[in-house]
Amino acid sequence: MLINGQPADHIPVSDRGLQYGDGLFETLAVIDSRPRLWERHMARLSRGEGVLGLPISDKRQLRQEADRLCTGCERGVLKLIITRGSGGRGYRPPEQAAPRRILSLHDWPDYPQSWYRQGMRLRLCETRWGHNPQLAGIKHLNRLEQVMARQEWRDPGIAEGIMLDLEDRVISATQGNLFLVDDNGLHTPDLSRAGISGVIRDLVIESAGDLDMTVGIDEITLERVQQADALFVTNSILGLCPVAALEGWAYAPERVPESLRQTLEERMRELP
Amino acid sequence: MLINGQPADHIPVSDRGLQYGDGLFETLAVIDSRPRLWERHMARLSRGEGVLGLPISDKRQLRQEADRLCTGCERGVLKLIITRGSGGRGYRPPEQAAPRRILSLHDWPDYPQSWYRQGMRLRLCETRWGHNPQLAGIKHLNRLEQVMARQEWRDPGIAEGIMLDLEDRVISATQGNLFLVDDNGLHTPDLSRAGISGVIRDLVIESAGDLDMTVGIDEITLERVQQADALFVTNSILGLCPVAALEGWAYAPERVPESLRQTLEERMRELP
Repeated sequence: MLINGQPADHIPVSDRGLQYGDGLFETLAVIDSRPRLWERHMARLSRGEGVLGLPISDKRQLRQEADRLCTGCERGVLKLIITRGSGGRGYRPPEQAAPRRILSLHDWPDYPQSWYRQGMRLRLCETRWGHNPQLAGIKHLNRLEQVMARQEWRDPGIAEGIMLDLEDRVISATQGNLFLVDDNGLHTPDLSRAGISGVIRDLVIESAGDLDMTVGIDEITLERVQQADALFVTNSILGLCPVAALEGWAYAPERVPESLRQTLEERMRELP
Repeated sequence: MLINGQPADHIPVSDRGLQYGDGLFETLAVIDSRPRLWERHMARLSRGEGVLGLPISDKRQLRQEADRLCTGCERGVLKLIITRGSGGRGYRPPEQAAPRRILSLHDWPDYPQSWYRQGMRLRLCETRWGHNPQLAGIKHLNRLEQVMARQEWRDPGIAEGIMLDLEDRVISATQGNLFLVDDNGLHTPDLSRAGISGVIRDLVIESAGDLDMTVGIDEITLERVQQADALFVTNSILGLCPVAALEGWAYAPERVPESLRQTLEERMRELP
């Protein structure tokens, strides 16, 4: 683990990331010593820094630190946290914030291969996404909604949970974005009020564009989810994973277009 | 500073308070070595622990640690943070969470006496409270909305900012609750969708009851704020502080009933 470039694993209690969740994070797949989709993750991080009014971090310095940590790692997960750094008591940010960079490397999770072939089983969560248009989309450190949703089940046979917002719109899984497949193409929830705009979500939308598939980004009800032919979940570690069932509803993993998977895989492999 | 009863000022990066804002806090006034309104703060903490699914903390142990820290402190601020403790990567809480207790003592802020006599000047914030009924009321560590609202101004002549919710309802100040005074009595915003239910807010409501004053807890528009005779802000450190002006609107601090102030002061002094 590196904190501001130095090997360390503790931070001061005064860090505003702890005090208020005043910061951002990114989770990247590491393959053959290289963090995947670095530029996409850095672009989202910069958007978040803009929203929170944090100084824009030096991405070359971050990359050097990431490379130090990832060298020799065949397959792993790089988590990068940027907080507003230490500050006094009270919400007011220091005028000259000195953000803290925390980079840590974690084991690759052993997702069962069956998830990719037969699809994951999903549940519907009771915990809702709150509405907050100003913070929606960015990957900040205020993540209690997803923590509470993920706390709802322990059954290891359930891979993910679907979360709605306060007005019964489908938003996402607890740790990834959601897509529906039907005869009209792809559909994914609008994230202007709630949710996190995923790097893989963007790549799926771009890949579909390459293949002349339609992607609707709009309000999605549970009824539409029920009627979809296929569902899939995306995130940077999982990639694209089809759904077998959500509660009592069954889906056809083979209805996720193979051409889409391949185009996405290429992008995930080749983009800087 | 005490962490789990030991003098320390750093926490592991793996703490879920940092990773997700997965925890709660309380801010107490310390006067003559004694944290004020301990039982009220502990009751709110327990409510929050229930909402987040944290084990209920041992309040006697917390009190012993607080007393150790506060002994000899004539006047100060005790901040108490409870996180879900350390956990692996991913939102899912550990099945046997070992919460971390972080107690720190801070200087008493020197609020100008003029605030209490002539009233504070307030601004109206652009940052809104998001909606989240499940988390509303409790004092959890996901506090980005207030951070962003407090970041909007630097003028030291402005003491506080008023925050609305997404549907233009008035909710609170950035660091305290808000009350309106008019011929019908007191009014304070309903906090079922957003905001923090303050310990002093409760005491004001109880004090008003003692004095047979009406307190309306309901939806409050900016128009009603404009028409009020007086406004005041409450929190555990500030106590009750009248408002002189909000943007261009002026208020009469002397319209805050003296009997209410006195009854509240008594409660603040005498309650355990």
